[in-house]
Amino acid sequence: MILTVTLNTALDLTYDVPKLVPHASHRVGDISERPGGKGLNVARVLSALGHETTVTGFAGGSTGAVLRELLAGLPPHGSAPAGAPDPGPTPAPGSTPGTVPETAPEPAPAPITDALVTVAGNTRRTIAVVDRATGDTTQLNEPGPLITADEWTAFLDRYEELLAGADAVALCGSLPPGIHVGAYAELVRPARAAGVPVLLDTSGEPLRRGIAARPDLIKPNAEELAQLTGSRDPLRATHDARRRGAHGVIASLGPDGVLAVTPDGIWRAMPPAKVLGNPTGAGDSAVAGLLSGLVEGLDWPDRLRRAVALSTATVLAPTAGDFDRAAYEELLPRVVIEEHAPAA
Amino acid sequence: MILTVTLNTALDLTYDVPKLVPHASHRVGDISERPGGKGLNVARVLSALGHETTVTGFAGGSTGAVLRELLAGLPPHGSAPAGAPDPGPTPAPGSTPGTVPETAPEPAPAPITDALVTVAGNTRRTIAVVDRATGDTTQLNEPGPLITADEWTAFLDRYEELLAGADAVALCGSLPPGIHVGAYAELVRPARAAGVPVLLDTSGEPLRRGIAARPDLIKPNAEELAQLTGSRDPLRATHDARRRGAHGVIASLGPDGVLAVTPDGIWRAMPPAKVLGNPTGAGDSAVAGLLSGLVEGLDWPDRLRRAVALSTATVLAPTAGDFDRAAYEELLPRVVIEEHAPAA
Repeated sequence: MILTVTLNTALDLTYDVPKLVPHASHRVGDISERPGGKGLNVARVLSALGHETTVTGFAGGSTGAVLRELLAGLPPHGSAPAGAPDPGPTPAPGSTPGTVPETAPEPAPAPITDALVTVAGNTRRTIAVVDRATGDTTQLNEPGPLITADEWTAFLDRYEELLAGADAVALCGSLPPGIHVGAYAELVRPARAAGVPVLLDTSGEPLRRGIAARPDLIKPNAEELAQLTGSRDPLRATHDARRRGAHGVIASLGPDGVLAVTPDGIWRAMPPAKVLGNPTGAGDSAVAGLLSGLVEGLDWPDRLRRAVALSTATVLAPTAGDFDRAAYEELLPRVVIEEHAPAA
Repeated sequence: MILTVTLNTALDLTYDVPKLVPHASHRVGDISERPGGKGLNVARVLSALGHETTVTGFAGGSTGAVLRELLAGLPPHGSAPAGAPDPGPTPAPGSTPGTVPETAPEPAPAPITDALVTVAGNTRRTIAVVDRATGDTTQLNEPGPLITADEWTAFLDRYEELLAGADAVALCGSLPPGIHVGAYAELVRPARAAGVPVLLDTSGEPLRRGIAARPDLIKPNAEELAQLTGSRDPLRATHDARRRGAHGVIASLGPDGVLAVTPDGIWRAMPPAKVLGNPTGAGDSAVAGLLSGLVEGLDWPDRLRRAVALSTATVLAPTAGDFDRAAYEELLPRVVIEEHAPAA
């Protein structure tokens, strides 16, 4: 089982409008609702890849209840339409005699187990207002519920129990109000102590503090890396991030793929060509690629191949945050991997 | 009891942002949630004026559940903060010996009875995104749930039962998807047959169709009146609206007050001075003023005085849609009333 932690889960709403005009009134067309927060997005991709996943973190109030209902009925396939709960897993299509399927049948989606801790506050909503013609998106993010000291303690107990059955853990996203800025260090340490590989995907001060507890992996983008290290040179910044405590750093370079600086070597992995689309969720798909490759025992080049193919297929998907499975299968063997000499 | 009908109720969210910038990401500061839709706003003001009110219409899904919870715990006083459910009615403040209260003690708020019909669809949200510095508001309105034929029939039964105990009824706002455009005519007729005075406050085709069933009153603003009649001359348009079937027309002229053309005479009612503020909900307060005056047996000038004082006090309130009670009390005797000669 792979565990993902989302301390600030969200009910992600997408509103379709002709064009957002400040100070005007808009009639929203299509609305979609789905469970969000980085760790839940990672879990959705892991499930589509066939990995049993458990999600924890916090959920509460009426918005938390909706999130959990959607999570229970979530279409586990990356490209299923949001907001339309799946009636249940469908059997993998069998090949009809005489028909040669163009692609391999999809792996059956694996279950996502809800181990969220219930809190008194109301889970936040995020609203993505999408201009119909251009796809340009305006984002409105509620701050999230205030987490009490007792709720944090209850979460720590749940987390330690879950670690016992985890093959890997991802700690994802921002901290809700009330959680101390060093919280991720508190979560990295027991994972390390239990020998569970831990990936930390956050930014700002929570990242800086979390790194000091020596996570196995971090996956910052160029902006987060620059904020952490003060350097905009990816190689220099990545080495600096390792010196601060991260065993391995997978720096996401957007359309240029990733730079991986690990105890086993240094690699660049790049998509075969630049693609246009919506990058929302591409980083979460990369995390799912890295973690699934890790627990499957793939070597670094194959893990990076998967991460880059998944994140590129996420940019190409028509719905933000989903991934296009056909594109993923097609991209996977074509990701370009370069091994670099270690720094002196 | 005064009955208000809100076919397209809403959970009204207000988001505070520094400044809305299209295609940027915003962290929302303060959030408020309250039950909305015109008929619920009218009910809140009626309750603050001490009138027992019953609300009906539709509510469903998780958003409908939140709306009903808030309605049950609603602070019945117009200026109480939204989103903070009242623990219960507080006793009216008694005057301490030796202290002369500056204004009369507030009337005890009257209960609001929830007679909404539960539907399968999800009640809509509306989001008012308010720029912190300027107060400029960008509005995002979900369309509302699809109402089925069976749900409409269930509503009609409930409505006819409620009419039996009603002193007056207000039919308010837009129609949700699935409701035929002539719906308001279907609601005006049984009210007229039961001898219950009926006020229709809607716009566009639903107003045009509803008027043909001869409601006692309509309360269009200048834009709605122009849309209905093709004329931008308020007096001409108002007379035209009466010819189309409305017994009385109270044309709202924004900061210039109202023009009332009724079977009993023609009046202008104007605030003593123009005021600056947020006009959201001013029309709903005017409806509450007209209906409360009607059931109290006030004459037209006093009903209009109340409507204009309440809507002006709503513009002046710090929270959109509430009214400032002190301003209301102060404005009431100062509303300027002019009686006009009937048209030839």
